[in-house]
Amino acid sequence: MDHEPLTYAASGVDPEVAERAVRGFAGAVATTHDERVLGGIGGFGGMFRAQFQDMESPVLVSSIDGVGTKTAVAAMAGDFSQLGYDIVNHCVNDILCQGAQPLFFLDYFGCSRLDPVVIDQVVSSAAAACRDAGCALLGGETAEMPGVYVDGEIDVVGAIVGVVESARRLPRTDPRSGDKLIGIASDGLHTNGYTLARQALFSVAGHSISDQLEGMEGTLGQELLKPHRTYLSSVWPLLAQESVLAAAHITGGGIAGNLVRVIPSNLQAVVETMTWNPPTIFQHIQRDGGIESAEMFRTFNMGIGMILVVDQDAAGEIVQALNESGEHAAEIGQLRNGPHDVQLV
Amino acid sequence: MDHEPLTYAASGVDPEVAERAVRGFAGAVATTHDERVLGGIGGFGGMFRAQFQDMESPVLVSSIDGVGTKTAVAAMAGDFSQLGYDIVNHCVNDILCQGAQPLFFLDYFGCSRLDPVVIDQVVSSAAAACRDAGCALLGGETAEMPGVYVDGEIDVVGAIVGVVESARRLPRTDPRSGDKLIGIASDGLHTNGYTLARQALFSVAGHSISDQLEGMEGTLGQELLKPHRTYLSSVWPLLAQESVLAAAHITGGGIAGNLVRVIPSNLQAVVETMTWNPPTIFQHIQRDGGIESAEMFRTFNMGIGMILVVDQDAAGEIVQALNESGEHAAEIGQLRNGPHDVQLV
Repeated sequence: MDHEPLTYAASGVDPEVAERAVRGFAGAVATTHDERVLGGIGGFGGMFRAQFQDMESPVLVSSIDGVGTKTAVAAMAGDFSQLGYDIVNHCVNDILCQGAQPLFFLDYFGCSRLDPVVIDQVVSSAAAACRDAGCALLGGETAEMPGVYVDGEIDVVGAIVGVVESARRLPRTDPRSGDKLIGIASDGLHTNGYTLARQALFSVAGHSISDQLEGMEGTLGQELLKPHRTYLSSVWPLLAQESVLAAAHITGGGIAGNLVRVIPSNLQAVVETMTWNPPTIFQHIQRDGGIESAEMFRTFNMGIGMILVVDQDAAGEIVQALNESGEHAAEIGQLRNGPHDVQLV
Repeated sequence: MDHEPLTYAASGVDPEVAERAVRGFAGAVATTHDERVLGGIGGFGGMFRAQFQDMESPVLVSSIDGVGTKTAVAAMAGDFSQLGYDIVNHCVNDILCQGAQPLFFLDYFGCSRLDPVVIDQVVSSAAAACRDAGCALLGGETAEMPGVYVDGEIDVVGAIVGVVESARRLPRTDPRSGDKLIGIASDGLHTNGYTLARQALFSVAGHSISDQLEGMEGTLGQELLKPHRTYLSSVWPLLAQESVLAAAHITGGGIAGNLVRVIPSNLQAVVETMTWNPPTIFQHIQRDGGIESAEMFRTFNMGIGMILVVDQDAAGEIVQALNESGEHAAEIGQLRNGPHDVQLV
């Protein structure tokens, strides 16, 4: 034979790099564990005690998601240190819309070639976000897949499991005409619409990641990489009241595509888009791409990260509580009798 | 402006394609649901009743994984119809090694451009595998990520949650010197080592996916795409006996890398590799790539998909039970006092 013996590492997958990476972030992962986690890191499955003593009828709530091509912006900027917040917070908000509190989270990291610095940034930030959410980082997987991923690009996926007392599940079935919509501000794009944003800002307008655009505080990279905001600490305490009837996480599909998922089939939601100003970044994307407003609202959160449907009599008090928790919240519309859809007016 | 308004679809992400795809496989997903699933498809989180009445101290067991570059072989063959079995069965086997029975599963599908036929093949086969495992397909996500994935390539990720009575968790702490190792045959590569296999078979040896190699029944594509075998139906019934002390799913890292994870720190495992014949596909990979045997055993399962550590007195009976369940199982080694490692002899 006239060539060196082929090895897994030479073919493009080096298990030792993955092992070193795991040893590197094992300490950060362990800080998310408490007495509910059994066994520690390295088992075939992470183990978590299913003890919900204070609940009559516990329901597990689970979601899986990715951060989309926000990873491509991170690759342009060479900064992956917020992506863990993005994926954890995205998942936390999703199950919050069913009324659930997080129990544990698992992450998946796919790439062409494993860069220990990149994966350490992603997993360490995921561990920090899990700690903030009182959630165990229970397991994870790294996959080195040459030929499947473009060189230098990554995908970041997460799955979460939380729990809710059955009687407290959202959405409740009793929203009525006249009930109010409360919008809570996002921190920029969160994790949706990045392919359109990259096309408009970079391909069409020719901006660079380090440009500082008019009206923006930091660079374009900093603006686009702001982590997905979590609403757990501000919204969760309100769910003990029966006046929060539903919650919609504004992700892919925008306000209309997500709000319609949580309103009863006999009601229409009317969102008054003049009640808030979309952050500057959305104006740049729209102008640079020459994008129609309807397409902007279908693709991006436009400055609203979560919408609560609340009892009309409690709206003022809930807005106040949210703002006291550090959110920017306001009434942005209401429900009325009509076809099951969302009108942006 | 001298160009058409930019749209999300024109930038490379068409939400309508994803919506049509979801409508296409929604029926298959619904067949995996029973009365434990609340709410159905379309919520922000899937909901599953946490009722484990017959358990004193239930423990949730969870794992996340991918199928690696088996997806690239599927793309070469234009056949994605088994990949759902791969990802579900991989996850089912992982939590089986902790003694857990599956409750629910979530899938994630990443790609450059969404092909409704491809995603339908993946999700429909995942739903079928979930039905086989008595497991609800509780949620999923599709991500169209141009610029991150190579055109035509996909990633398939899954997360599973199962449950085990705390006292029945594996591995047990009591394996002793002299306890036996039972190997259960795999169905080919399962989901590991595909980057090395592709390099050896296609890049070095120049085979095509439709070649029929010496000693193999079908084409190379058929051989490489055999789904990951699940051991749930044969191994789960045996776990009621206390004589099954541990189980290792032979995935990335091979026999040694996985078996060492489940044996006590004061014991050494000795695996007698002459007790079985690795399937022909492994011989082709080794010869074509000029790969050293040690590297083969570090990378591939080499014909053993799962290893049980069992009480020495019960080994014969357990081998017989496995073979009566349709497995090919045999004693392949034992534990002895020594350093905490796995010796392949």
